[in-house]
Amino acid sequence: MPTLRYDVLGIGNAIVDVLARADDDFLTRQGMTKGGMALIDQPRAEAIYDAMGPAVEVSGGSAANTIVGVASLGGRGAFIGKVKDDEFGRTFAHDIRAAGVAFDTPPASDGPATARCYIMVTPDGERTMNTYLGAAQDLHPRDIDPDAIAAAQITYLEGYLWDPPHAKEAFLKAAKIAHDAGRSVALTLSDAFCVDRYRGEFHDLIRSKTVDLVFANERELHSLYQTADFDTAVNAMRSDAQLAVITRSEKGCLVVTREQTDAVRAAPVERVVDATGAGDLFAAGFLVGLARGADYRNCARLGALAAAEVIQHMGARPETSLKALAEADGFAL
Amino acid sequence: MPTLRYDVLGIGNAIVDVLARADDDFLTRQGMTKGGMALIDQPRAEAIYDAMGPAVEVSGGSAANTIVGVASLGGRGAFIGKVKDDEFGRTFAHDIRAAGVAFDTPPASDGPATARCYIMVTPDGERTMNTYLGAAQDLHPRDIDPDAIAAAQITYLEGYLWDPPHAKEAFLKAAKIAHDAGRSVALTLSDAFCVDRYRGEFHDLIRSKTVDLVFANERELHSLYQTADFDTAVNAMRSDAQLAVITRSEKGCLVVTREQTDAVRAAPVERVVDATGAGDLFAAGFLVGLARGADYRNCARLGALAAAEVIQHMGARPETSLKALAEADGFAL
Repeated sequence: MPTLRYDVLGIGNAIVDVLARADDDFLTRQGMTKGGMALIDQPRAEAIYDAMGPAVEVSGGSAANTIVGVASLGGRGAFIGKVKDDEFGRTFAHDIRAAGVAFDTPPASDGPATARCYIMVTPDGERTMNTYLGAAQDLHPRDIDPDAIAAAQITYLEGYLWDPPHAKEAFLKAAKIAHDAGRSVALTLSDAFCVDRYRGEFHDLIRSKTVDLVFANERELHSLYQTADFDTAVNAMRSDAQLAVITRSEKGCLVVTREQTDAVRAAPVERVVDATGAGDLFAAGFLVGLARGADYRNCARLGALAAAEVIQHMGARPETSLKALAEADGFAL
Repeated sequence: MPTLRYDVLGIGNAIVDVLARADDDFLTRQGMTKGGMALIDQPRAEAIYDAMGPAVEVSGGSAANTIVGVASLGGRGAFIGKVKDDEFGRTFAHDIRAAGVAFDTPPASDGPATARCYIMVTPDGERTMNTYLGAAQDLHPRDIDPDAIAAAQITYLEGYLWDPPHAKEAFLKAAKIAHDAGRSVALTLSDAFCVDRYRGEFHDLIRSKTVDLVFANERELHSLYQTADFDTAVNAMRSDAQLAVITRSEKGCLVVTREQTDAVRAAPVERVVDATGAGDLFAAGFLVGLARGADYRNCARLGALAAAEVIQHMGARPETSLKALAEADGFAL
């Protein structure tokens, strides 16, 4: 087996977030579905940007946020994703490297601009996302470095990768390399609408054991199995997946295996300022725990701790050392 | 007299802030003077960016922050400053317009990139700034719209404008137009090192009554009169300026005229998260008060209220409506 260099390697859309506060009326006027992620083209991106309030730019991207969380927890992380060689692309690359993550995907020198996600944060802390994929469309199987995949204990893939045209080939290539090297593969379902677009393919990924671990929130789970009944959906997931983690916001999460279901509480939060990144950071904690040999309950507790940090401020990346927070909570990382 | 369209028009360097947390050791290793603003060239900008941690991008610029504060207080604001037609330039333009400020300076189509300020925020909340002026260097007298200046009750100029080569000509042109139209001109001294670079010229501006109102913090005041004795410096300012406001951080401020000195307390603050923009927002409150005919004590109270909001979060622009805060505090705006 090749030398282990990374706890978790993430593959995802490389995105800069453009965050602004907005009220619910703004979402209605703009025809946005609250809490969801919509894919938008460039004219729509410009129209949204013109209409939205003063914004803050922070590097984002679902799997990228997760890997930054992994690094903040003291784990060794790597990321593969496509930016353009433009100002936002350099911003993305700086931020992820400055967080201690290995990031070596060559930027595109032409084509569309670096991806951005226009995020409206409503007064209740919920986020509504509009993603212009731009250069992230151009992630290609040749961007998958086989040595890096083989050197990572877990390769983590975002369901959003099903949107760009060649990224799913990159995804499947990476999963095969990981398994051939005796490593694990994890997938997040990303978004209920994303599940709706690729339901059959996601079923296949899970049932064929292309992925060993699945993260889903309640809406994604319901969308995957097209049922409104939670227990029915959980049982369907149990028979399909080797290991699944169902996140339920303030209700905590369920860790589901063939044999059992463990419920783990959410970590206490004073006030939800911005839910952006909650699922991404939950995954970071769970994956670091898993890579370090923690049991599932402690993996979930680490996930809950990381998620709680990120929803108490604007932006989807931790503002404090998650390792220090975890150690204060009794974890040895 | 031309129709009044703006309470305050600001002229300054149009800058995007790149903010990161850093410890004091980082400042030492990088040879940065804590609390100051250093001008840097492009290679130094790249070296600092490479060394600094994950960052957040927020539109900034001293006078620009002030005018956004004016708008947040319900005032009518306009801004003149130079960006390039690049991603950060479009970010700057979006943010200031989305805040309700008139901004019509044409962007540069070639030459250096939009200005950015690399800001290190230490655990005590102090900010240390490194400014790459870029396109802001190209502000030119032809960018001064005489109609806009004549339509503004107060034209507000930042001392930092003495750094770019042609901006001081723009500054003097604007001051003359304002006075010819019967309007007022205000100046902030910006930074103690800036005062050190242009002490004689700043003396002349004040003594010649090119400016009617001067904002200075304690360090800038001491630098202007090259004395360590506060009372000596205040008395020197009193004999030079028609109206001066000396800001003293948590000690509040002094409003100094020929006849008297009024001390006004700072507004209470739970915790200083990031001092970036404190002086800029103080000026916003004072200027709106002045434009609306408040007495000097109430102008200073409005300034204190605006400064208190901005130092309790990252970034130099208000995150909540300052008008609502002021009204809750008994002001009618």
